[in-house]
Amino acid sequence: MIYLSCDYHHGAHPKIMERMNQCNMEPNTGYGEDPHCAHASQMIKDLCQDQSVAVHFMVGGTQTNTTIIAAALRPHQGVVTAVSGHINNHESGAIESTGHKVIGLPSDDGKLSAAQIHEYYLAHKQNESYEHIVMPKMVYISNPTEFGSIYSKAELEEISRVCHEDGLYLFMDGARLGYGLMSPENDLDLPVITKCCDVFYIGGTKCGALFGEAVVITNPSLKEDFRFILKQRGGMLAKGWLLGIQFETLFEDGLYFEICKHAVDQAMRIKKAFESKGVAFQVDSPTNQQFAMLTADVIRKFDEKYATCDDEKPTGKAVRSVRFCTSWATDPAEVDELIKDIEAWC
Amino acid sequence: MIYLSCDYHHGAHPKIMERMNQCNMEPNTGYGEDPHCAHASQMIKDLCQDQSVAVHFMVGGTQTNTTIIAAALRPHQGVVTAVSGHINNHESGAIESTGHKVIGLPSDDGKLSAAQIHEYYLAHKQNESYEHIVMPKMVYISNPTEFGSIYSKAELEEISRVCHEDGLYLFMDGARLGYGLMSPENDLDLPVITKCCDVFYIGGTKCGALFGEAVVITNPSLKEDFRFILKQRGGMLAKGWLLGIQFETLFEDGLYFEICKHAVDQAMRIKKAFESKGVAFQVDSPTNQQFAMLTADVIRKFDEKYATCDDEKPTGKAVRSVRFCTSWATDPAEVDELIKDIEAWC
Amino acid sequence: MIYLSCDYHHGAHPKIMERMNQCNMEPNTGYGEDPHCAHASQMIKDLCQDQSVAVHFMVGGTQTNTTIIAAALRPHQGVVTAVSGHINNHESGAIESTGHKVIGLPSDDGKLSAAQIHEYYLAHKQNESYEHIVMPKMVYISNPTEFGSIYSKAELEEISRVCHEDGLYLFMDGARLGYGLMSPENDLDLPVITKCCDVFYIGGTKCGALFGEAVVITNPSLKEDFRFILKQRGGMLAKGWLLGIQFETLFEDGLYFEICKHAVDQAMRIKKAFESKGVAFQVDSPTNQQFAMLTADVIRKFDEKYATCDDEKPTGKAVRSVRFCTSWATDPAEVDELIKDIEAWC
Amino acid sequence: MIYLSCDYHHGAHPKIMERMNQCNMEPNTGYGEDPHCAHASQMIKDLCQDQSVAVHFMVGGTQTNTTIIAAALRPHQGVVTAVSGHINNHESGAIESTGHKVIGLPSDDGKLSAAQIHEYYLAHKQNESYEHIVMPKMVYISNPTEFGSIYSKAELEEISRVCHEDGLYLFMDGARLGYGLMSPENDLDLPVITKCCDVFYIGGTKCGALFGEAVVITNPSLKEDFRFILKQRGGMLAKGWLLGIQFETLFEDGLYFEICKHAVDQAMRIKKAFESKGVAFQVDSPTNQQFAMLTADVIRKFDEKYATCDDEKPTGKAVRSVRFCTSWATDPAEVDELIKDIEAWC
Repeated sequence: MIYLSCDYHHGAHPKIMERMNQCNMEPNTGYGEDPHCAHASQMIKDLCQDQSVAVHFMVGGTQTNTTIIAAALRPHQGVVTAVSGHINNHESGAIESTGHKVIGLPSDDGKLSAAQIHEYYLAHKQNESYEHIVMPKMVYISNPTEFGSIYSKAELEEISRVCHEDGLYLFMDGARLGYGLMSPENDLDLPVITKCCDVFYIGGTKCGALFGEAVVITNPSLKEDFRFILKQRGGMLAKGWLLGIQFETLFEDGLYFEICKHAVDQAMRIKKAFESKGVAFQVDSPTNQQFAMLTADVIRKFDEKYATCDDEKPTGKAVRSVRFCTSWATDPAEVDELIKDIEAWC
Repeated sequence: MIYLSCDYHHGAHPKIMERMNQCNMEPNTGYGEDPHCAHASQMIKDLCQDQSVAVHFMVGGTQTNTTIIAAALRPHQGVVTAVSGHINNHESGAIESTGHKVIGLPSDDGKLSAAQIHEYYLAHKQNESYEHIVMPKMVYISNPTEFGSIYSKAELEEISRVCHEDGLYLFMDGARLGYGLMSPENDLDLPVITKCCDVFYIGGTKCGALFGEAVVITNPSLKEDFRFILKQRGGMLAKGWLLGIQFETLFEDGLYFEICKHAVDQAMRIKKAFESKGVAFQVDSPTNQQFAMLTADVIRKFDEKYATCDDEKPTGKAVRSVRFCTSWATDPAEVDELIKDIEAWC
Repeated sequence: MIYLSCDYHHGAHPKIMERMNQCNMEPNTGYGEDPHCAHASQMIKDLCQDQSVAVHFMVGGTQTNTTIIAAALRPHQGVVTAVSGHINNHESGAIESTGHKVIGLPSDDGKLSAAQIHEYYLAHKQNESYEHIVMPKMVYISNPTEFGSIYSKAELEEISRVCHEDGLYLFMDGARLGYGLMSPENDLDLPVITKCCDVFYIGGTKCGALFGEAVVITNPSLKEDFRFILKQRGGMLAKGWLLGIQFETLFEDGLYFEICKHAVDQAMRIKKAFESKGVAFQVDSPTNQQFAMLTADVIRKFDEKYATCDDEKPTGKAVRSVRFCTSWATDPAEVDELIKDIEAWC
Repeated sequence: MIYLSCDYHHGAHPKIMERMNQCNMEPNTGYGEDPHCAHASQMIKDLCQDQSVAVHFMVGGTQTNTTIIAAALRPHQGVVTAVSGHINNHESGAIESTGHKVIGLPSDDGKLSAAQIHEYYLAHKQNESYEHIVMPKMVYISNPTEFGSIYSKAELEEISRVCHEDGLYLFMDGARLGYGLMSPENDLDLPVITKCCDVFYIGGTKCGALFGEAVVITNPSLKEDFRFILKQRGGMLAKGWLLGIQFETLFEDGLYFEICKHAVDQAMRIKKAFESKGVAFQVDSPTNQQFAMLTADVIRKFDEKYATCDDEKPTGKAVRSVRFCTSWATDPAEVDELIKDIEAWC
């Protein structure tokens, strides 16, 4: 079985394991107050070209999304997202469990537009029942999105402008940020993201780490007492240095970017193979996730040899979207094999 | 100014005021443990033809919806509603504040269908990410809906059948139940509603009382410890007998039904007047709320003389839906006046 | 049976009923946006000698406490109270249901001292596990307390000073405020309370109204968006003018103060009668609640003729604290009767 | 500096690191649905001698406590604990953030007694204000406690009996369970704990793992839908097999018990050294935490050479309790050094 169903099928990049082995018997202070976390934070500040940001390390994505949103909002405020946003669909109601409404706006490709955000803001503000409707206060975007699409610099800057004019926090879920930044179509970088967002995170779990997400907070009012909320929501890892070590390693000599580029390169090969056979995509993705539209017959063939992600299966549709997902760990030889099969079966 | 913007513009039906005056200096035990609440509960059990139901009196609708839902659901469970459902749009996130997702299904007329509910249930049950998605556990319907439409006996029975097969609680928000039951198109009655729903309430605030909603719980598992939750959510009125007195009065000699019929009769006169002028409606409503589609020019004329509800105003559309809402307190002479103006202006 | 178990056994003062009857068929805008609420707010601003305060009207005490606390605190912050505080013991976990810890400090008489508050604040601030412990952010005091005791002007000013130095909000639950202000031992008044507290409320339910609590917010940061939270927590009464009318009446010609004084006068007669027989009190109360220490035998005699509050009953102690509670509605002739019985039985 | 301030100063036992290295490039299904978790679960079922238990793996203690309690309780129910319980003091209000009151009962040694639990249960049940007071529904005990003390078999069985008679869930926090089970004074074992508790967990983070707690649920009603809550609370690790691998290793050839015994042996040496110098203890602990009562002068000496835990520092007391905590990683040579210093300085 060749594993292409997600980007968290393997342990960590070997360099991370090596460093964790080296540091294993080194005594450290707990809860993220150790030199590894301090060093990794500093590396991130440098990469973001902003020494004023606050950096926190957390274990996983749902935990990170929930903690950030719970820390930011008052009880009557909600978070705006594309309907396909991870917080709306795949976190078992984690955000609502903190008391906040997730406000889903329609989107075909997983992205929100600045116009859409401003329109929703205005519709609420001018409504006669203003005080009877949840106040939008934060905008959640994922980059890359759940469909692999990415925001351009111009799009992000326009969203940021609208958010700040309308008093909305802009929060970017970067669980797969590395795969976005290394896309051939990308024109964003960490300093621009830092300037545009009030808070975002750089994903480790899906990009080479055993686990870990690095939260970067730029808005001073979101920095206050963040560690209390981190602890309250079960997100303060006792042996916090495990997170520090992983991000230290990822950001040394550009390892993070190098291994994410590898994954995107492999995905682009898969994309091209499907395209050459005239297969359509649910969304045109320039990153490590490719959603090919396949018939049930073809899917059956792939299922015997490849682990993929087929969320549409219950619908029983004749043509369904199937996700092929590469990662830092994807073996090019397995992609060779896949390309041959695409050519034969599609 | 003639008030037709909502059904809670006036105090209480004079008979209620009379009874409250009579009982004013009578000492009573607090928190709903008084003879008036006991008597009103018994009257409701008789009307529902089910002595096993639990009856509780609460002050207002948002409080009632929130308390019922919070009492029924475990943390990972959500409540399914039409997108237009009051709990989804007009309660400032009250349901989410208890930790539960409100799952909005599309609907043009404010109603859900049994097929729609079952389809959503199945889509969740068969999803590969089953445990990552909020579990639907309760279905919320309002009758009449926020658009004035009502469920037929056949529709309600089919929804009830599906809910019980799929392990979903069925909850009917009856804030305007009296106006639904007295509609010329209605074929429901309290015993049928009691058989079909796990919990519902009979609205007082909008149907002749100063305030008050009578909750009827039929499902034994929803009865347990309900008063704890009532207290916790601030819904246990200290002078609970004020609620008992009001419902005693409303259910004596059929007052509740008589005054609701009056409101519907007046609404039907307004509906007919619009129809005779070829004015369309947003939804075809057989109850006390009429949503007429009017041009901005015509709306301007009405606005000088009538208080109506114009929720679409911020959209700036050329033709908007405007609500004309009657109540137990609507003066037929004012409706005469309105009809003349409809004839003149539309 | 003579009712002395609580101060919410009767309806409303007759002048309130009269005014509600007069206004019953007057059309009003809902949700507290009516002339009665505006007028009552203005009266309260004048009484507080501060035109900048925000005034909101709510239905009951638990709802009011919960809404204020939920509006004020971030998720990791808690509210400090005497262990006997109503929010700690008698609200079925309402505060915790909003996600906040209630931090109970020991107290014999229901009061907190400034020193106690500061000491707790410091103990948290200097703790090595600072971020692992709920941050105290609000101090809740009740005046009169649950035991009838009251704060002096000097005590309140000292508490206020400490709170503001330590960055804590000071919140006074005034469910029985009228009975405190009319105590012979009281030296507080509304302008001083307004200066000292960030938020407080003037109780109506226990002081002559059918229901109603008037919230006064002095701290600008607590005013923001309060009505959203009011709605979310089910506390925005549809027919809000019912609250406005009641407070208009209570504050006209000093009715509130006059009727509360009556209750305290009757309580002082009861206190004196017990004292003259050498009966001890659980707490020395100068307000409308008297907690006499009585033997089981004596309690049995009272129980046949008087409804009192005997919360210690389950303990089976030989001498228990029994509450005799007067109100604006207490009949002096019934107190005459009680005094005779005290003389005979104690 | 010799580290004795806590039991999570080091990475993982070398055998765990070895196994994680071996499995690093093995593709696995995420979210705990992999062969390692299945195998570790089976090992735990065998150790507990109960094949019907449900086993779940989580990352850390606060997360585990919160998830279990949130999964078990309805909104009006609270959890009873010793005041010193971790959930009451050191989790930043995590439990309250799920809406539940933590009910602290007094305790000198960190333990609760069966009599104390039953007495609280009865006091609530018989209270006149029953429905106004949070209902106790779960009892939380930690074993060893936060002070290192442990429950005997007789004590645990009696607590279990009382809980089940009173309808309370019994939950044991076993973050340090290994250190308890290997105490010379212990007469408990996993099968007895399984029989007595509705749910408990076997701590990994403090007992040799990088991180990880193994939850064991015996009560069928607590098993239902647990994975939804796990996901909702951010506790479902994407690369769940990392937890499976660690517990597989810990339970192979009794490694868990062997390394915990080592820690307790070292702690007993420290205890004996203090005792031989007449130093008193805050609590008499037979496990890996020793709380010695030392003067500020002596503490100053230790502070230069040893990292210890001095939570009482802010109190400025003349004699304070200082924690010396050993772990699986404690070097006997460092304990030799400490013993020499105790002999010299105390």
